[in-house]
Amino acid sequence: MIRHIVSFRLAARDAGVRAEQAAEAARRLNALNGVVPTLRAMSAGGNMLSPDVNWDLVLVADFDDEAGLNAYQVHPAHQEVAAYIGTIRADRVAVDVEV
Amino acid sequence: MIRHIVSFRLAARDAGVRAEQAAEAARRLNALNGVVPTLRAMSAGGNMLSPDVNWDLVLVADFDDEAGLNAYQVHPAHQEVAAYIGTIRADRVAVDVEV
Repeated sequence: MIRHIVSFRLAARDAGVRAEQAAEAARRLNALNGVVPTLRAMSAGGNMLSPDVNWDLVLVADFDDEAGLNAYQVHPAHQEVAAYIGTIRADRVAVDVEV
Repeated sequence: MIRHIVSFRLAARDAGVRAEQAAEAARRLNALNGVVPTLRAMSAGGNMLSPDVNWDLVLVADFDDEAGLNAYQVHPAHQEVAAYIGTIRADRVAVDVEV
């Protein structure tokens, strides 16, 4: 199983705006469960501690293999959420691990 | 439950060295299971895809609450691993979410 973990720093200067946007992005990401066939589990959330040091949003998504991750990346429903996140994010960091 | 997710970019220029160091750091982090009383679950791993884009190491650690996370941060066994990671890392990003 591959676990795809992506953290995002959002661009808005106001912490309240970042928190609202992170919650909306997490809602859209979590709604991909059952929509993208190769997505075994998605758990996304907005940051809740140390807002001055931590980044704002993280997703943890599981796939059977690399092909499943690649299919997710190009799936229209994922691309729609990725496009939204693209409008609010300033930075992105990903790590993919075997679990 | 609080999920503490931390990604690391390691400093070594050689990808092979980074992979070895990430595996060692993940081994030490996973060894904290059952050692730090407030740590409910730790899952750490080295990156295995897109090495030119992704960062090198990630940990996912669960705690009952913020106090549990704080107790982990100051626990000697965690501080020992954190000190090791401090010698090999170039960058660190954390996000703490409710699960």
